[in-house]
Amino acid sequence: MGLTIGVDIGGTKIAAGVVDEEGSILETSKVSTPPTPEGVVDAIADAVRKVSTGHDVEAVGIGAAGYVDDKRATVLFAPNINWRHEALKDKVEQRVGLPVVVENDANAAAWGEYRFGAGAGHDDVVCITLGTGLGGGIIIGGKLHRGRFGVAAEFGHIRVVPDGLLCGCGSQGCWEQYASGRALVRYAKQRAAATPENAEILLGLGDGTAENIEGKHISDAARQGDPVAIDSFRELARWAGAGLADLASLFDPSAFIVGGGVSDEGDLVLEPIRKSFRRWLVGNQWRPHAQVLAAQLGGKAGLVGAADLARQG
Amino acid sequence: MGLTIGVDIGGTKIAAGVVDEEGSILETSKVSTPPTPEGVVDAIADAVRKVSTGHDVEAVGIGAAGYVDDKRATVLFAPNINWRHEALKDKVEQRVGLPVVVENDANAAAWGEYRFGAGAGHDDVVCITLGTGLGGGIIIGGKLHRGRFGVAAEFGHIRVVPDGLLCGCGSQGCWEQYASGRALVRYAKQRAAATPENAEILLGLGDGTAENIEGKHISDAARQGDPVAIDSFRELARWAGAGLADLASLFDPSAFIVGGGVSDEGDLVLEPIRKSFRRWLVGNQWRPHAQVLAAQLGGKAGLVGAADLARQG
Amino acid sequence: MGLTIGVDIGGTKIAAGVVDEEGSILETSKVSTPPTPEGVVDAIADAVRKVSTGHDVEAVGIGAAGYVDDKRATVLFAPNINWRHEALKDKVEQRVGLPVVVENDANAAAWGEYRFGAGAGHDDVVCITLGTGLGGGIIIGGKLHRGRFGVAAEFGHIRVVPDGLLCGCGSQGCWEQYASGRALVRYAKQRAAATPENAEILLGLGDGTAENIEGKHISDAARQGDPVAIDSFRELARWAGAGLADLASLFDPSAFIVGGGVSDEGDLVLEPIRKSFRRWLVGNQWRPHAQVLAAQLGGKAGLVGAADLARQG
Amino acid sequence: MGLTIGVDIGGTKIAAGVVDEEGSILETSKVSTPPTPEGVVDAIADAVRKVSTGHDVEAVGIGAAGYVDDKRATVLFAPNINWRHEALKDKVEQRVGLPVVVENDANAAAWGEYRFGAGAGHDDVVCITLGTGLGGGIIIGGKLHRGRFGVAAEFGHIRVVPDGLLCGCGSQGCWEQYASGRALVRYAKQRAAATPENAEILLGLGDGTAENIEGKHISDAARQGDPVAIDSFRELARWAGAGLADLASLFDPSAFIVGGGVSDEGDLVLEPIRKSFRRWLVGNQWRPHAQVLAAQLGGKAGLVGAADLARQG
Repeated sequence: MGLTIGVDIGGTKIAAGVVDEEGSILETSKVSTPPTPEGVVDAIADAVRKVSTGHDVEAVGIGAAGYVDDKRATVLFAPNINWRHEALKDKVEQRVGLPVVVENDANAAAWGEYRFGAGAGHDDVVCITLGTGLGGGIIIGGKLHRGRFGVAAEFGHIRVVPDGLLCGCGSQGCWEQYASGRALVRYAKQRAAATPENAEILLGLGDGTAENIEGKHISDAARQGDPVAIDSFRELARWAGAGLADLASLFDPSAFIVGGGVSDEGDLVLEPIRKSFRRWLVGNQWRPHAQVLAAQLGGKAGLVGAADLARQG
Repeated sequence: MGLTIGVDIGGTKIAAGVVDEEGSILETSKVSTPPTPEGVVDAIADAVRKVSTGHDVEAVGIGAAGYVDDKRATVLFAPNINWRHEALKDKVEQRVGLPVVVENDANAAAWGEYRFGAGAGHDDVVCITLGTGLGGGIIIGGKLHRGRFGVAAEFGHIRVVPDGLLCGCGSQGCWEQYASGRALVRYAKQRAAATPENAEILLGLGDGTAENIEGKHISDAARQGDPVAIDSFRELARWAGAGLADLASLFDPSAFIVGGGVSDEGDLVLEPIRKSFRRWLVGNQWRPHAQVLAAQLGGKAGLVGAADLARQG
Repeated sequence: MGLTIGVDIGGTKIAAGVVDEEGSILETSKVSTPPTPEGVVDAIADAVRKVSTGHDVEAVGIGAAGYVDDKRATVLFAPNINWRHEALKDKVEQRVGLPVVVENDANAAAWGEYRFGAGAGHDDVVCITLGTGLGGGIIIGGKLHRGRFGVAAEFGHIRVVPDGLLCGCGSQGCWEQYASGRALVRYAKQRAAATPENAEILLGLGDGTAENIEGKHISDAARQGDPVAIDSFRELARWAGAGLADLASLFDPSAFIVGGGVSDEGDLVLEPIRKSFRRWLVGNQWRPHAQVLAAQLGGKAGLVGAADLARQG
Repeated sequence: MGLTIGVDIGGTKIAAGVVDEEGSILETSKVSTPPTPEGVVDAIADAVRKVSTGHDVEAVGIGAAGYVDDKRATVLFAPNINWRHEALKDKVEQRVGLPVVVENDANAAAWGEYRFGAGAGHDDVVCITLGTGLGGGIIIGGKLHRGRFGVAAEFGHIRVVPDGLLCGCGSQGCWEQYASGRALVRYAKQRAAATPENAEILLGLGDGTAENIEGKHISDAARQGDPVAIDSFRELARWAGAGLADLASLFDPSAFIVGGGVSDEGDLVLEPIRKSFRRWLVGNQWRPHAQVLAAQLGGKAGLVGAADLARQG
């Protein structure tokens, strides 16, 4: 099979792109995400038609937040778009006249990294995506592990603190409340409010108040040596690394890939995650250690991965 | 291939048995577990020779506690026997003249249940063994998931309570400190000491002191309605079920199998585990639920599973 | 001194009452709580003038949520009304021409119970108020313990779960997030959403949805045997009793008094709190146990206590 | 009253000293702690007789680990010596012919610091003693707060981690498991085992193994910049400071005094404790902050405090 289209449905934008067999994007198109389920289907169809003009395209892969069923056809439940048992595959196929595969967005991103990014040379890979929340994907023996019902690798919602923070999923103490971009901002706000004398650089990058600290301030401040910003990254890494150690006990991959916006900071966040991972890895002197790698495809991983999954059929 | 031998190395006994293709045990032999690594190898060889007399045996599978490498040949580390990089496969092959496969004991038990026990009809199964500690095994797509380095499915040591109970592995807050036979006894002792008026039946089954409560007293007392015994099972189930919910988020199997000595109590422990599982399953109204099944092979699962893994080669 | 006035500033109502030396309320008046600090001062003055007509009143005691300074004059900080270093004593004295004492509302309620309610016969008493949040008051040797800066007995904000639930105070894991009326409702909602089959009575008392469960439904459902409602009270009691055990380790009073709206349910909530208290009381077989008593004055404790504190000068 | 004798009963030594009204020790005597309760009484009597020779002594104060009753006469329960309802006051009085007062050892030490050490100028003081375990004492309005039954200020056993580390008291998650000399050593051992590359100095001070690290190595290594040693102190301080913040919410003293062997390290441990205290102090921008002071009397605080309590009668 030659060219396929990958579609990445985000909270604000829907991106579509024509992708070749090497994972290169030949052409892309972006539209705003409509507020209704039907609008989203229309927007996907429009984007696919627009981007495919002039290309000989054979299939479409869609990455969507939420639970996707084991047939890769229906979104059972999506937290941000109002999808409940949405037959996305059928609806889009009817409009674009191409075979469609639907996949969880974090699974698609993991597949993209596995195939064309940081996963080169590994067959057993676990990816975590530290974005606003925490998503994940699992590759075992070169195959995406979807689970019996299609909803495996929901890493963000394993419980790491009993009776811990409330999560949007209705549970408490979920990993993504402690290891995600949102968590990083909370760490910085709490610390800056309690000890502003240690957050002068950080507070100076915004309006001077703890409550208006933003993610990009924290990275900048950390690079400039701000103690609260550095400590906030360390706290994030403490939780991220401890969770990876648990995943090593469960899956035993040869490599972890850490992606998502938070990981764009590179070693600022990767190095403390590696330290925390070694610290908490059970039996760490008796076993080979998985590598902890930075993702390489940035925000394109999901689109590229979805396109490649469509190619695989 | 016809008959194979399964060997189960326990803390006090080494059991060997001749197993046929249907998982039936034709003959068994037991010896005490010697205290030295070399002694254990000798004992295994003796048991294999003894039990194989008169049978046309083609291979040997050994289930051993600890980390077994990805070649299924060397025990990297065993907590109870003093094995460090023990080349068990080679040593036993030299003495018995048959091909040998070494496998983690909980993996072997999981495989046994998958093939000949509660796993019938399922291709994606996660097993937990609630014995003295907590072990696990994973079957994905009908294959045992060993991980890249052979040490996957070490469920007992994922962290469920940050800064929690010390574990023999050197870490803190490991799942097996909260969901295992040892945990059950601790729950009962603590509760009986604090509120003996609620533990009259339980205390009456032993010498009357909380510190000498044993596991079998707790089951008996629970069946007789002892509030502390019932509450102790409930506490165990609270942690076991919550952990299964996390495993569902990670692996998404079609069934969980709960084995080990604790699970011999049947619905006394299975029902509260199922309740806790549903309580903590993220998105439980939007997804198909895995079944939570009682193991069927009891203490023979490891031996039968090891024999079958040897047959598969 | 003869009659004094007690004022209780609540989130929705301000109540004033004339109280005699036996703690009896001779006359009361209620107004809505105005939205601005200045409006609240006016409303207090109006209520005091109104209720004092025809009575020979000698002083005014005001119970206010928030940190009250050690001179009992200034509210340093109030969470619900926008008070920051509000000189409440001076402002009210200027308008009503009577000596004024300001006290934290939970301290006032504790004093009321100590003097005229459940505290009879005890000199060392710790009170907790399980209302929307969790407040407290301490009497040591017959005197209210205010602390060096006036802000002692802020029980609701001791940390009982590291990395736990966010609290309005900016911290995490505060006791009032686990033991309060708000916590009770959260427990019921979470459990009813996860296992509606165990909440049929509870859901039937409202509109059938977990998210609209109210506190009064939970009490009614618990009395009718609803498993989720009973379990929700038990969870509340688990945290309340464990906290009382900690307070016993710290203060060692002869009695605890449990007040606030939640405690109106009497033994439905008091009995499980007592059990949990005994369960967690360190060294419980080697020491005398404090009693755990239900408050007797209901919602009037704060008003009566504030009036009595004004009398004491 | 002029001279009194203070007795400090430790796990290995019993120390007696003649103390004047200014808290100066005029003469001391030490003996080994006998293994039996009766032996301890004899040893106390011997030490008192020996040290009092040539001094006009009027009373004896004894500091003992454990629960001392409200009459300051009987040790209800001692964890290390086999005392159960031991009438220590009567037994010692009969042998030495002087009035005797028995006090909990941490209370005695707190009183010593309050009267003659770091407490100068404060009337409301909370002391914590970071020794092997964690003890405490409370002074309110210039008086020792003993509680209704004599067992107040058992700080070491408030629960700071639900389902946390086992404690010798039978409970779990007690503060002294996270903030004490024993905890410090555990932190260092765990970290050195997991990441020996960060503990080269620390490991070099002992025999090179993590399991044989001792407390004094950690201080020395921290001063030399060893990352694991510094991080271990920081972890201790994290828990100590968070606990002091809770005690501020409860007692609201004007000063905390931190004593015990761990505090001998001075600002190495005090500064991070102060930082953690400010970090966790609820409403820290709205309230006056208690000072966090280093104890001044070192290991003599208990003896001097016990002597002074005897003087007060």
